[in-house]
Amino acid sequence: MKYYEDIETGDTHEFGEYHVTKAEILEFARQYDPQPFHTDEEAAKESAFGELVASGWHTAAICMRMIVDGELDDRASMGARGVDELRWKQPVKPGDTLHLRTEVVDKRRSESDPRRGYVDTRMEGVNQDGDVVISWVGLGMIARREPGAETESAE
Amino acid sequence: MKYYEDIETGDTHEFGEYHVTKAEILEFARQYDPQPFHTDEEAAKESAFGELVASGWHTAAICMRMIVDGELDDRASMGARGVDELRWKQPVKPGDTLHLRTEVVDKRRSESDPRRGYVDTRMEGVNQDGDVVISWVGLGMIARREPGAETESAE
Repeated sequence: MKYYEDIETGDTHEFGEYHVTKAEILEFARQYDPQPFHTDEEAAKESAFGELVASGWHTAAICMRMIVDGELDDRASMGARGVDELRWKQPVKPGDTLHLRTEVVDKRRSESDPRRGYVDTRMEGVNQDGDVVISWVGLGMIARREPGAETESAE
Repeated sequence: MKYYEDIETGDTHEFGEYHVTKAEILEFARQYDPQPFHTDEEAAKESAFGELVASGWHTAAICMRMIVDGELDDRASMGARGVDELRWKQPVKPGDTLHLRTEVVDKRRSESDPRRGYVDTRMEGVNQDGDVVISWVGLGMIARREPGAETESAE
């Protein structure tokens, strides 16, 4: 199990494989983002996209699944406070296969909770052509292996 | 139909109603965010949350559904470039009922595309107790009614 102390700024990781089907694009969009270019192949042809594309929130959810399976599975994660700079850079289409690239961009101890550290990670979802389709900076929380150790030694 | 010209910075809107069930929390999380505090009631009791809570991406998707139904239904939306400052402020639990508050915080014409305008909107998802559970700034794109008309200064 990896704790706060085991993660360093600059750490990179490339992982995951998620095949995006038309059926899944339609199912997600009909429940959570029923705009015509996400739910209706014919209407999508008339839209700015010119074809059916996945909801941006669906793309984020797909990346989250890869993060849980490929990165949080061996981490003492305490969840996330939020994300910054989420951008939908390219449409995700039926038949695309996505994977993830991550880089730790900052880490620091919580001032208020000695059991907790903050780890900021840049996430990029990448398609089979190497195009970044989505990116964001995740504001994660992770348990410290030795809670309060540095606080105690400072006393 | 509302176009870029019909939207003003400072416009506010409060709308929507979405009842969040335990079954839906489990279904979303099992597919997209299978961390134990989202998928397993017993394991959630041992987590920092102390009970089952919705995936933060699920909460965002629920809010998107309300936005599509209550705000984009009469707008010439061209999608969104992304979101800034997404924050999960309070957990969403089975039985919660959410609604939306929105405020337009900025608008400007595209310099590169005379058919398009940018509208930045602060979104807040609010539960039945009046607590903000999620917030973000959506970076929306919307069609101009009169493409290219030079009625105001460009970005």
